[in-house]
Amino acid sequence: MRVLILGVDGYLGWPLTLGLKAAGHHVGGVDCYNRRKWIREIGGQSATPIKSMPERLDALKEHFPGGAQFFEGDVTDYKFLAGVLEIFQPEAIVHLAEMPSAPYSMIDVEHCVSTHKNNLIGTLNLLFSMRDHCPKAHLVKLGTMGEYGTPNIPIPEGFFEVEYRGKRAELPFPRQASSWYHQTKVHDSNNIMMACRMWGLRCTDIMQGVVYGITTDEMRDDERLLTRFDFDQCFGTAINRFCAQAVIGSPLSPYGGGGQKRGFLPLCDSMTCLTLSVENPPALGEYRVFNQFAQVYKIQELAEKVQSAAADLGLMVDIINLENPRVEDESHLYQPDHQGLLDLGYVPTLDIKAQLTGVLSELIKHRQRISEVEQVLEPSIRWEGDITPCQPKDEQEGLTSDSETKALLSKAM
Amino acid sequence: MRVLILGVDGYLGWPLTLGLKAAGHHVGGVDCYNRRKWIREIGGQSATPIKSMPERLDALKEHFPGGAQFFEGDVTDYKFLAGVLEIFQPEAIVHLAEMPSAPYSMIDVEHCVSTHKNNLIGTLNLLFSMRDHCPKAHLVKLGTMGEYGTPNIPIPEGFFEVEYRGKRAELPFPRQASSWYHQTKVHDSNNIMMACRMWGLRCTDIMQGVVYGITTDEMRDDERLLTRFDFDQCFGTAINRFCAQAVIGSPLSPYGGGGQKRGFLPLCDSMTCLTLSVENPPALGEYRVFNQFAQVYKIQELAEKVQSAAADLGLMVDIINLENPRVEDESHLYQPDHQGLLDLGYVPTLDIKAQLTGVLSELIKHRQRISEVEQVLEPSIRWEGDITPCQPKDEQEGLTSDSETKALLSKAM
Repeated sequence: MRVLILGVDGYLGWPLTLGLKAAGHHVGGVDCYNRRKWIREIGGQSATPIKSMPERLDALKEHFPGGAQFFEGDVTDYKFLAGVLEIFQPEAIVHLAEMPSAPYSMIDVEHCVSTHKNNLIGTLNLLFSMRDHCPKAHLVKLGTMGEYGTPNIPIPEGFFEVEYRGKRAELPFPRQASSWYHQTKVHDSNNIMMACRMWGLRCTDIMQGVVYGITTDEMRDDERLLTRFDFDQCFGTAINRFCAQAVIGSPLSPYGGGGQKRGFLPLCDSMTCLTLSVENPPALGEYRVFNQFAQVYKIQELAEKVQSAAADLGLMVDIINLENPRVEDESHLYQPDHQGLLDLGYVPTLDIKAQLTGVLSELIKHRQRISEVEQVLEPSIRWEGDITPCQPKDEQEGLTSDSETKALLSKAM
Repeated sequence: MRVLILGVDGYLGWPLTLGLKAAGHHVGGVDCYNRRKWIREIGGQSATPIKSMPERLDALKEHFPGGAQFFEGDVTDYKFLAGVLEIFQPEAIVHLAEMPSAPYSMIDVEHCVSTHKNNLIGTLNLLFSMRDHCPKAHLVKLGTMGEYGTPNIPIPEGFFEVEYRGKRAELPFPRQASSWYHQTKVHDSNNIMMACRMWGLRCTDIMQGVVYGITTDEMRDDERLLTRFDFDQCFGTAINRFCAQAVIGSPLSPYGGGGQKRGFLPLCDSMTCLTLSVENPPALGEYRVFNQFAQVYKIQELAEKVQSAAADLGLMVDIINLENPRVEDESHLYQPDHQGLLDLGYVPTLDIKAQLTGVLSELIKHRQRISEVEQVLEPSIRWEGDITPCQPKDEQEGLTSDSETKALLSKAM
């Protein structure tokens, strides 16, 4: 199949290129290196020593005949993107070319607006250029489980049937996102759903859980094929941050009480699921939603699992809960469905301990690169607008933080 | 009360300025004349000979001591907007500074993107500058009934309580908009809801029906105080277009079968409702939704009412249904609540015939200005992407248009 990956230089885009090549697909990729720029902007660096795109592409060609066709450019440039679609004529397009960080989008008004521009305009350009150049192609769009928020009812896959005042209807499940980044994914979902209805496009909108992990099978033999691994407060996801803290002997730092529940999946599962979606397109005109994760955990549980896996490797680390910089419920119902991908044959990786041991063992090799910029692990971007380092939660007891005051306020409403 | 109106030069912004001044409020206004530019771009003009802002402000001051404080600038410029809020210190902000046309947003990718930029960035800038400069001010934001679409269940005011798999929750009512413009209003609603929760801002989000009408009491004595009246396919609303067609003897042209139901209200009711919202703010942190309209009608019924009111004035016009340029249901349930404003004292104007007679009588004075650009009345912007004039629907019978094919496709899904 001819698959075009937007955001091919990213954490997921690069391993997906390797995975799709290994599965025999014809792969093209688009990127403008925004992720590298954002990481430089916040003072971070990838723990893995990733190569430049030309070096990556050379290594790819050595391992997988034909390599990948690369188009350097920005998806927010309509003419560029339309030109790529016209030339490459993809059968599937995996759209990973968005700014993916909640804290980054919360820094200030400029970052909120640039996140909206980057994410919404890229997706709108894609919908128009698909309509005009490859209307039968299948869009696989990366959304997030965070679009749903944490409502007090089970979370279906995109749609639910309700009875209301004696009438029944199938409706989109209401989205209640909790950061500007998450909101841009909600806006995208609404825009894509309309484009499918209006223009007969087909899309799989992936509500993905939190991905963790460092390598996939295809990159283990050649360091030039490694994907990036971010651990900073913006682009590092919870488990990856805990693992980075563990390998440099820094306490693991769940935010708040750590009672927040989320769906998680290892990097290899994300690749499996994206490949299953690509290889099993919906009908023309269909807007299909998959909730993509392996299992639900509390953040605190995960910190404990990382602590335990690290201890087995001789790395003894504490867990110190920090003030929660986010405005979010720390205790809530969380019952999301995730049946669609199971029906396509996805077998979730359930042995998280083995996964964590794998991540830690690999990450130890790169601990120097983590230590070099370890200050980026500390959370300071607060949802209320201040940027001040979060203190250990215990030292805050008795005090009511602004964050808690507002959470209380919003509950009292 | 200190009230700041964003979009003060527009169809609603200007009469609201007059109404709030008449009610004794201290009024400020912001505009960058985008509406005038958009109307020029599509070759239209206001049927009413509106004055420049300096002339309007002079006339305002003659009739209402103190006039209004005017700030010329664009709400998508954060520094400008934040500066205005810091100087004016509003107690209420009425945000009407958005691109308000569905067809205009559907012209092409550039218009879709510019609509997203204008509407979303303006609102985001406003939320951040309210947080930083007047966090207790009340935001009265103009949304649209079109955010809800036409689901097969009654439409509540913003939120509904549902039972799902044995759990109950109050949730935002799902939005299913049908144009890029309407989607931007949905995105705004989601962003504003989050800002209220996160930052404790207060907002009344107005899901407004289709407004029609030409004058309000305060502008009848002085032509310099007239508001604009658009009748083109982009910025003219259904009833106003029908009235413009009637006064130049052109057939009234409902789109498709005319079975589409919408909520409507006269201009004077819109002013009453916005004023009631301003004068009755919600609590800090509250995100309140009002559905703002007087009555629900089918488009075809309204064309017949305009035809009849015109006949009473000696204007005999036909009704010729055109192909529907939009992708929309033409036969659907429509049961929206609109209790919130009634509870605040709104008494809807129910005698639509008298209203239509009033509009037609006034509009006759300006028929020459309508005739000058009458071609802008003809619909040609199609939701599928083409721009070709819509033909009479009768001549299309037996044919299945692209639009009908796609509507059938989407129903079959």
